[in-house]
Amino acid sequence: MPQRTTRAVHVPPTTHEPMDYTCPFCGIQRGLFNDRNLPSDIIAVTERAFARIAPKWWPGNPGAVLVIPRAHVENLYDLSPADGQAVWELTQQIAVGIRSSYGCEGTSIRQHNEPAGGQDVWHLHVHVFPRHTDDRLYQRQEEARWVSSEERAPFAQRLREQLGMPATFD
Amino acid sequence: MPQRTTRAVHVPPTTHEPMDYTCPFCGIQRGLFNDRNLPSDIIAVTERAFARIAPKWWPGNPGAVLVIPRAHVENLYDLSPADGQAVWELTQQIAVGIRSSYGCEGTSIRQHNEPAGGQDVWHLHVHVFPRHTDDRLYQRQEEARWVSSEERAPFAQRLREQLGMPATFD
Repeated sequence: MPQRTTRAVHVPPTTHEPMDYTCPFCGIQRGLFNDRNLPSDIIAVTERAFARIAPKWWPGNPGAVLVIPRAHVENLYDLSPADGQAVWELTQQIAVGIRSSYGCEGTSIRQHNEPAGGQDVWHLHVHVFPRHTDDRLYQRQEEARWVSSEERAPFAQRLREQLGMPATFD
Repeated sequence: MPQRTTRAVHVPPTTHEPMDYTCPFCGIQRGLFNDRNLPSDIIAVTERAFARIAPKWWPGNPGAVLVIPRAHVENLYDLSPADGQAVWELTQQIAVGIRSSYGCEGTSIRQHNEPAGGQDVWHLHVHVFPRHTDDRLYQRQEEARWVSSEERAPFAQRLREQLGMPATFD
């Protein structure tokens, strides 16, 4: 006999991480680096979260940042209250830091859950974007590109100086 | 003699609210309703935040929600820690509620600060979107439309039932 449920619709599993996934955002915390995940990307490290320059940028928004819980959590549904508080607090600090040091005219944030939601790294991350008038961030969705470490480093340096927070996992 | 500053660049004021602004998200809390802001839109009310069905939808994402601090705060730069915690906690609850009751395959959130950042209501709000495979949320940026109260009400009702939280300002 089918079990009763209080859910209005059937919800399939919301996890999409492959069994053999090598997580880049766990790796960077353990010293496992590659061209897209380097110590020079790190901006701030707190007890439960860290911020780094994003490895992929949209053309009108250079220097975008990712804020990430230190614990491996796939998506927003499973984020603990303590990790959530740490992520959002650091997200706000990064938005203020970007607005105070990049010469931009606004900021925006976004966060994606599951493939249909636009997620493609299986460790929760919040995007923080510098915004410029008429940058057409959303309309240029298809124009994102991987950015070299040489392009990323000066933005990370600027934010480290602006925020003055610890920026290593030691 | 110019004053020394520790800021890397000059930051102009980050507030853009007109002096005579009538805030719709303060109004709805005080019983000042209009076609785009109705009691039937309210999903959940906590001590410091509330959630409502958005008055404007993108075509692939019906039933989108706004999470709003009860206090009048223009943008993320000025959000207090207590209000921030309340907003993000409710945002997470709404994402889970949408995923559990809409029949969608993902969720995403976004939040805009200042006109260059895409903000057009001068009271902070976080968008929570149901996501469907190939909904092209970002690519269809220009296709948002105001939605009638008759279209909004069933989504609010579904989320109220799913969440079971207080949904009035009494």
